[in-house]
Amino acid sequence: MVTSEVPKRQRLSVDARRSQLVAVGVELIATQSWDDLTMNDIAAAAEVSKPLLYHYFSTKSDLYLAAMQAAADQLSESTRPDPALPAKARLRAALRVHVDWVEAHAHGFQTLLQGGVSGDPRARQIIEDARAETVRRVVHSMDLDEAPPLLRIALKGWVGFLEVACLEWLETPDVSKDELVTLLAKSLPGAIRSAGA
Amino acid sequence: MVTSEVPKRQRLSVDARRSQLVAVGVELIATQSWDDLTMNDIAAAAEVSKPLLYHYFSTKSDLYLAAMQAAADQLSESTRPDPALPAKARLRAALRVHVDWVEAHAHGFQTLLQGGVSGDPRARQIIEDARAETVRRVVHSMDLDEAPPLLRIALKGWVGFLEVACLEWLETPDVSKDELVTLLAKSLPGAIRSAGA
Repeated sequence: MVTSEVPKRQRLSVDARRSQLVAVGVELIATQSWDDLTMNDIAAAAEVSKPLLYHYFSTKSDLYLAAMQAAADQLSESTRPDPALPAKARLRAALRVHVDWVEAHAHGFQTLLQGGVSGDPRARQIIEDARAETVRRVVHSMDLDEAPPLLRIALKGWVGFLEVACLEWLETPDVSKDELVTLLAKSLPGAIRSAGA
Repeated sequence: MVTSEVPKRQRLSVDARRSQLVAVGVELIATQSWDDLTMNDIAAAAEVSKPLLYHYFSTKSDLYLAAMQAAADQLSESTRPDPALPAKARLRAALRVHVDWVEAHAHGFQTLLQGGVSGDPRARQIIEDARAETVRRVVHSMDLDEAPPLLRIALKGWVGFLEVACLEWLETPDVSKDELVTLLAKSLPGAIRSAGA
C-alpha cells in the first residue's frame, strides 16, 4: 500500500512509516512556524505523497500533537535527574538540558504554549502531563512521597515560571543560556520557601 | 433597528446595547463553561434575539474576547497599587484583589488560559498585555524605569507563576485564599532575588 503510492521510496512497515513522519514533524515543528505550514509542505519535507500523509494523520493537528508528544517524551527522558550528582548540580544539569531543548524546539515550544493549537485539549494534556512530571520529580528530590497542597501550588506555579521565563528568554538575545539556567536554578528554592516548606 | 428585532426590550443606543451584551458575556464567562455555551444560550441570557446578538458579535469568540477584555480591564483597574500603603501591604492588597477576581471569574480565567479560545491571537494579546502591565507595575515599585533583561525574564516568569498557581488553587479547595495570597506575596521577592536583583 505504501509503495504503491510512493514507488521510489523504501518499503516501510506501518510503524516505521509513522515514526518517520513523526520525526519529520518534530524537525518541522522545531524549525518552522507550524501555523504557516500546509499538509503539502509537510508531505514534501517527508518526501511522501499527500494521500499517504493523510492516511497516517487525518489533520495537521493530529501530526502536530503526535510530534509534540514525541518531543515532550524526549525532553522528559533527557532531563531525568542524574542520581550520581549532588542535589544542586543535579537540578542545574536537568535545567540546562531543558533549556537546550527549548532552544532546539523553539518554534514548537512557542506553538504548544501560544499557537493556534494551544486550545486543543490534547495540547493541554501534553502540557499538563509535562508539568505534573516536573512537579513529581521536584517532590521526589525533596524526599517526599506527596507534596502538601500549598507546596503543590508553589511547585506548579514554579513550572509556570519556568515556561514563561523560557518563552521570554527566546525573545531576549542579550541573556546567555548560563545566566538563564542560574536564574531558573535559584528560583526553585525561592518558590519552595514561599510555601513555607 | 434594535427595537424592531426585540420589540419588548428597552430601546438602547448601539453603544449601550453593546455594553449590555458584553456585561452578559462577562457574567456568563464567570459562571459557566464557555466552550459548552451556544449563541442561542447567550441570546436567551441577554434576553435578545439571536439575529440581534449576531449583529453585534459575528462569532461566539468575538463576544468572548470583548467580554474577557472588559473583565481584564476591570482587573487591571482594581489591582492598581495603592500609593498610600507601605510596599508590602500594597503588594498584598493588589494580590488579594487579583485572587478575588480569579475566584469570581474562575471559568473565564480557565478558558482564557486553557480553553478552546486560548490559541486565538486576540486571546494571546489580552494575556500578553496583562502580563506586561503586571511587570511594569513591579518594575515601577522597585523605583526602576526599566528592568534589565535578566530581571525582566524573572518578572515575566513570576507572572507565569501567578497564573499557574491561581489555576492550581482553583482545583485545591483545602488551601485558603489567605494562604494563597501569602504564598504569592512571598514568591515575588524570591523571583527578584533569583535574578540577582
